[in-house]
Amino acid sequence: MSLVEALYPICRSITGDGVRKTLEIVSGWLPLDVTEVPSGSQAFDWTVPDEWNVRDAWIEDLEGRRIVDFRDSNLHVLNYSIPVDSEMDRSTLDEHLYSIPEHPDWIPYRTTYYAEQWGFCLPHRVRESLEDARYRVRIDADRSPGSLTYAECVVPGESEREILVYTHTCHPSLCNDNLSGIAVAAAAGARLLSGEKPRYTIRLVFGPGTIGSIVWLSRNREQLQRIVHGLAIGLLGDNAPFTWKRSRRGTAEVDRVAEYVLGRRSNDNRIIGFSPYGYDERQFGSPGIDLPVGRLTRSENGGYPEYHSSADNLDLVTEDRLAESVEVVMEILQILDKNRYFVNQEPFCEPQLGQRGLYRKTGGSEIPDRESAMLWLLNQCDGRHSLLDVAERADIAFDILAATAAELLDARLLADRSTQETE
Amino acid sequence: MSLVEALYPICRSITGDGVRKTLEIVSGWLPLDVTEVPSGSQAFDWTVPDEWNVRDAWIEDLEGRRIVDFRDSNLHVLNYSIPVDSEMDRSTLDEHLYSIPEHPDWIPYRTTYYAEQWGFCLPHRVRESLEDARYRVRIDADRSPGSLTYAECVVPGESEREILVYTHTCHPSLCNDNLSGIAVAAAAGARLLSGEKPRYTIRLVFGPGTIGSIVWLSRNREQLQRIVHGLAIGLLGDNAPFTWKRSRRGTAEVDRVAEYVLGRRSNDNRIIGFSPYGYDERQFGSPGIDLPVGRLTRSENGGYPEYHSSADNLDLVTEDRLAESVEVVMEILQILDKNRYFVNQEPFCEPQLGQRGLYRKTGGSEIPDRESAMLWLLNQCDGRHSLLDVAERADIAFDILAATAAELLDARLLADRSTQETE
Amino acid sequence: MSLVEALYPICRSITGDGVRKTLEIVSGWLPLDVTEVPSGSQAFDWTVPDEWNVRDAWIEDLEGRRIVDFRDSNLHVLNYSIPVDSEMDRSTLDEHLYSIPEHPDWIPYRTTYYAEQWGFCLPHRVRESLEDARYRVRIDADRSPGSLTYAECVVPGESEREILVYTHTCHPSLCNDNLSGIAVAAAAGARLLSGEKPRYTIRLVFGPGTIGSIVWLSRNREQLQRIVHGLAIGLLGDNAPFTWKRSRRGTAEVDRVAEYVLGRRSNDNRIIGFSPYGYDERQFGSPGIDLPVGRLTRSENGGYPEYHSSADNLDLVTEDRLAESVEVVMEILQILDKNRYFVNQEPFCEPQLGQRGLYRKTGGSEIPDRESAMLWLLNQCDGRHSLLDVAERADIAFDILAATAAELLDARLLADRSTQETE
Repeated sequence: MSLVEALYPICRSITGDGVRKTLEIVSGWLPLDVTEVPSGSQAFDWTVPDEWNVRDAWIEDLEGRRIVDFRDSNLHVLNYSIPVDSEMDRSTLDEHLYSIPEHPDWIPYRTTYYAEQWGFCLPHRVRESLEDARYRVRIDADRSPGSLTYAECVVPGESEREILVYTHTCHPSLCNDNLSGIAVAAAAGARLLSGEKPRYTIRLVFGPGTIGSIVWLSRNREQLQRIVHGLAIGLLGDNAPFTWKRSRRGTAEVDRVAEYVLGRRSNDNRIIGFSPYGYDERQFGSPGIDLPVGRLTRSENGGYPEYHSSADNLDLVTEDRLAESVEVVMEILQILDKNRYFVNQEPFCEPQLGQRGLYRKTGGSEIPDRESAMLWLLNQCDGRHSLLDVAERADIAFDILAATAAELLDARLLADRSTQETE
Repeated sequence: MSLVEALYPICRSITGDGVRKTLEIVSGWLPLDVTEVPSGSQAFDWTVPDEWNVRDAWIEDLEGRRIVDFRDSNLHVLNYSIPVDSEMDRSTLDEHLYSIPEHPDWIPYRTTYYAEQWGFCLPHRVRESLEDARYRVRIDADRSPGSLTYAECVVPGESEREILVYTHTCHPSLCNDNLSGIAVAAAAGARLLSGEKPRYTIRLVFGPGTIGSIVWLSRNREQLQRIVHGLAIGLLGDNAPFTWKRSRRGTAEVDRVAEYVLGRRSNDNRIIGFSPYGYDERQFGSPGIDLPVGRLTRSENGGYPEYHSSADNLDLVTEDRLAESVEVVMEILQILDKNRYFVNQEPFCEPQLGQRGLYRKTGGSEIPDRESAMLWLLNQCDGRHSLLDVAERADIAFDILAATAAELLDARLLADRSTQETE
Repeated sequence: MSLVEALYPICRSITGDGVRKTLEIVSGWLPLDVTEVPSGSQAFDWTVPDEWNVRDAWIEDLEGRRIVDFRDSNLHVLNYSIPVDSEMDRSTLDEHLYSIPEHPDWIPYRTTYYAEQWGFCLPHRVRESLEDARYRVRIDADRSPGSLTYAECVVPGESEREILVYTHTCHPSLCNDNLSGIAVAAAAGARLLSGEKPRYTIRLVFGPGTIGSIVWLSRNREQLQRIVHGLAIGLLGDNAPFTWKRSRRGTAEVDRVAEYVLGRRSNDNRIIGFSPYGYDERQFGSPGIDLPVGRLTRSENGGYPEYHSSADNLDLVTEDRLAESVEVVMEILQILDKNRYFVNQEPFCEPQLGQRGLYRKTGGSEIPDRESAMLWLLNQCDGRHSLLDVAERADIAFDILAATAAELLDARLLADRSTQETE
């Protein structure tokens, strides 16, 4: 939550100094490699736009009273507005104003990344109160060659195969969307770096939405086959249950793991199908890329009243919910990491567990959980069923199965399929 | 409805002048190619039977009072009766009578195509009133060498691949079964001929039930691979919701299209599995033929009280329902025709729609239908998903998707898979 | 039931004279081939244990009053106890006692096959009444080299391909578990031997649980590919509905047949998934064996209060229920035997059934069952659908279909796929 609070005041966009300052603060939590991609660079069908920076902006009446002031909220400026400095009549001004009649006290968040426009976002109540004939408006901003900024943190694993975690950094003062995602990614990354070396390499990417993942994908095109699992994360601080949006493939291993984790935690958690709108999962799921990347959020994009408005503020996000979100991300990553394929080394009938001290000595009428886990593992581990497959079929917790598999591995009753294959 | 009314009085059977007169009247609506297949011709396991024509038929008491008269209703004669001219006692006569005790005022419709029998169908009330010791009976009919008659109307398409529409013409004065099917086929055919040239060639066949489709199939055996979709239609004027009976394959494209059309029109419409009885779909679905031909009706065969009786008359069928049936047939044909496979030409991430003027300029919190259709098409069009696949997955109306696909085709963001393959 | 009563008093275990005496009595019902496998023989990961025989056993107080006496119930001795002859204090004795507090009048059944222990099983009420300081205990038993005994009865069929029926013989005086299974197997075997020669060879195996099937499998490893279907049977005399436990494969033909038979008999019958505990199906379903062997019981193992206690006695099992179980076993075996693949010899459209005298002569509005069976068979018999497939799809009883298929075979409209392939 302290990270969310530190990042809240900064005016971010898809490029600019606000993003750089954000990444600098995040780098206090975990080491980041920052990449700057010059304006004009080609990325598939897209071109990196000019960089946008805004210094000040206001609407004044002719007596110089400020009606709308960027210093009060960076949402007031239509994001990526071109500069303006002019006096105009009310109806002309009104064509450049955005408000939400249903929530007259909230400032909406609107953008104009790829069109040369300017505008102001303001509470509908303020807009309705504009009664003068003429107003003065000023947006002191640049759209000029610069660069697009993204950052990566790599947690090295035993294998070069990677799990990708992507979160978007382009939204200004909106807490749930997406300071929550940035904070959860930072906290998970810090825990991964201080923990045991994972099997998979884990790559966390902090970049702007849409153009950020497009630029990242175009610059890493040759290495995409390394990515075996992926999660786009965001919107992880509000009070909704968790939502897993399936990857385009729908039944990728990451989908099954996420559904397993969410399903065991609460029946309120939701699984939804892939759709080509939302966050960066839509780029990872484009037909030419088609990586197994799903999305973890609490509310969905557009799924809560405060979405894309000034009401998505520090009150909407709590420390507890952020911490729980970190747990869920970690659990998904850990199960992906531990979800191996084993092969029973004594596959003809059951091995004699008692002889190996793995079994209770007096036959009775009930079977303990650990023995049940052993029997299921020995029965199902033919190289075609993963630990998760066994966990789901046997309805035994993944952790118990993983621990029991380690015992059977020690007893040489199981072998790791991948190890066995390379022997 | 005027066509139904014109055809109602005619005595039809699987062969004979009634069928010829029927096809002559239909040819006032759309051009027909009439084929005559001589009696004795072999058709797979069957032989075309002798032609049947009946001139007059009656039962009289010995005073010459007519009890049953063919001129009142052609249903009175057991269809395909051999001639008879005789006086007999009541109990002998009764062995040749057919009636429906549950509906004592209705004349049943019965046939004896392949057995040398004669008989009369009559209201049960009349049968019960026969009290004399002896009666005179006369059926002035021929079963003699002639031919079996069927007719075709071909709507030429861009491709030689065909959609087949078959409707049975063999029933005498029964309106729903199947003057309704004849009328709907004729109206649909007329509309197809006056409309834009379709992609597929569409072939409408008007032939007798069972022996007609068997004869047609045996004479067209070398060309059957042209048929990519097919519908047997009939029973389309009564007040039941629509019923789609799946092709033998069960998941053919025509099944999916028909289920889509019926499902979106009304929840009352029904989808039923294939079964080897009913109308000509049973021949198209025999194991050696196995064409993707399903069946569209309202009530099923045997599925309404008036079925195969004199109560299946002009009161059972209405203009409105016939018109709605034409709409449904046309909609199925049109979706089959438009259901193409496209390939996204910018498959790496999303293309920049804004740059091409295809996207609204200011980012907000809701997504318009047309943009949603674009995103779904760009995401799913990898050559493996048809427009219908996308419509079902995205829950967007097929028409909107088809129109949007045309826009994306113009913008060169989509290409037609079949065109692309031949380039 | 008379067989159950004859076998009830005998003290059985996984080896020993009790098993031999049991098989001798069973051989009065059907001829058995008895196999003796010497102690120390290797069977996959297992070794045949020393043979166990017990002559007498008791707990006495120091005045010589017998508190617990093997002659009252052979359950009193912990099965496979090593000998003991000693005086000891009450608390030491208590470590060797087994009772069921929830059912204070029942003697539990417990075993120690693979650990060198001794013990007594007794009613909890008796255990609680032990108040003396010291007791004398005696178990006059041997665990010494001998052999493990199993028996087979083979019902020869036209083919060398086999259906395996396995039932466990190792439990002492417990009626449902598993004198019921032994009796049902014996009665079914006797009926099969006196009936028509089946298509498949049917092999009934009477052997101890776990070690018995392991030994049998290890000694028949080269012939296992003969086994095309299998049932482990047991617990068939209690008043529960039937339970089919699916084979490891889950969708084997025997699973489908058993589910069909149980489903048509009662909605109370249950189908459960495979799990690696229970009876000998767990060995047949080990990953290296993986035979299509499911399990038929009434209650499941552990699924009734009297399970593994002295209350599983002659009162729990009735003649009627045993007889019904024999019927179910026979029905499963018969459908497996009759479930063939036929091929329509006139596959192009329907054959003309009327011409062949297979069809009623006057067309009406309803279709008789036998004709419906003919049409379904002619439509579905393309060599890819078995009789059971047709029975399930058409919802026509298997028996009616099998009889109708025989008619069509006579009329040369169907051919047996296997016969046709070899022609």
